[in-house]
Amino acid sequence: MDVQKKRIAIDMDEVMADTVGKLLRCYNRDYDDCITMADLRGKKLRHVAKCGLEVYRYFDDPAFLRDLDVMPDSQEVIRALQDRYEVFVASAAMEVPASFAAKYEWLREHFPFIPPSHIVFCGDKSIINADYLIDDHTYQFARFRGQGILFTAAHNVEETGYPRVDNWREVAELFLK
Amino acid sequence: MDVQKKRIAIDMDEVMADTVGKLLRCYNRDYDDCITMADLRGKKLRHVAKCGLEVYRYFDDPAFLRDLDVMPDSQEVIRALQDRYEVFVASAAMEVPASFAAKYEWLREHFPFIPPSHIVFCGDKSIINADYLIDDHTYQFARFRGQGILFTAAHNVEETGYPRVDNWREVAELFLK
Repeated sequence: MDVQKKRIAIDMDEVMADTVGKLLRCYNRDYDDCITMADLRGKKLRHVAKCGLEVYRYFDDPAFLRDLDVMPDSQEVIRALQDRYEVFVASAAMEVPASFAAKYEWLREHFPFIPPSHIVFCGDKSIINADYLIDDHTYQFARFRGQGILFTAAHNVEETGYPRVDNWREVAELFLK
Repeated sequence: MDVQKKRIAIDMDEVMADTVGKLLRCYNRDYDDCITMADLRGKKLRHVAKCGLEVYRYFDDPAFLRDLDVMPDSQEVIRALQDRYEVFVASAAMEVPASFAAKYEWLREHFPFIPPSHIVFCGDKSIINADYLIDDHTYQFARFRGQGILFTAAHNVEETGYPRVDNWREVAELFLK
């Protein structure tokens, strides 16, 4: 009998892609500041940056998203997950419509083993039909039908209530042991 | 008690947007042909067009998708559905990555009452967590967790096995009576 694989949906920004790392580098350079990841613990960048909400204007430039670093170990762990799970990428791209194409190209370059049919751009992730959602935002778990797995990011270190993974090695521990 | 609304996901091409109508006009003009909608009954355009698969090259031009006609009655019926259901748009945009932005802009122009959070670009619609999916492609229903509703298009007139609606008035009959 063909047993249906369980399905894992994976967020992109700050889970597969080091979005905030690049944002911080660009911000520090352009605003002559020296905010570190440690400064962001439990906080949003907009509350720490000199320019406030303006700091997110970087996302309006598709080129910004095109060359983000890949999160350590994410490629090999996701490749291994595919043997035992059905893996989808679920990115909340609707917040920044200009980002669609750049996000898609980035995924195709760094994760060519994830077929386009398994990439989803959405807003509210309650629309995702999966057993697990690995995400750095707990608000996406509220109406999600499966189990949310919180991927540690500076802004969420104080949040509780969901299983937490600090990195991709811990994702492997959780799903592949 | 707050009763959760049932959720309807709606396909875009040939359900909300008259994609094939424009494709046919462009093809007939450029290839000096006179294929009608009636000629397409039970067939794919690629099997009837002089240029075969090439006919889908029109989709590679984002401008092509930007000014599609809205399907008759779709705006008012979807607006009415929102009072009783949670409505999402689910478009298989991953087949043509260049189409993301144009599709998004088209939706915002013609269906501004559908929030961006409720727009999904995906490939395999089995990832959609909804109670109903209104779509013109039965292959999207195979693994869909809810009930597929087949929206009549020339290519699907001979397909059986799913409840069928011929137009948006019939969608209203089905969901709002």
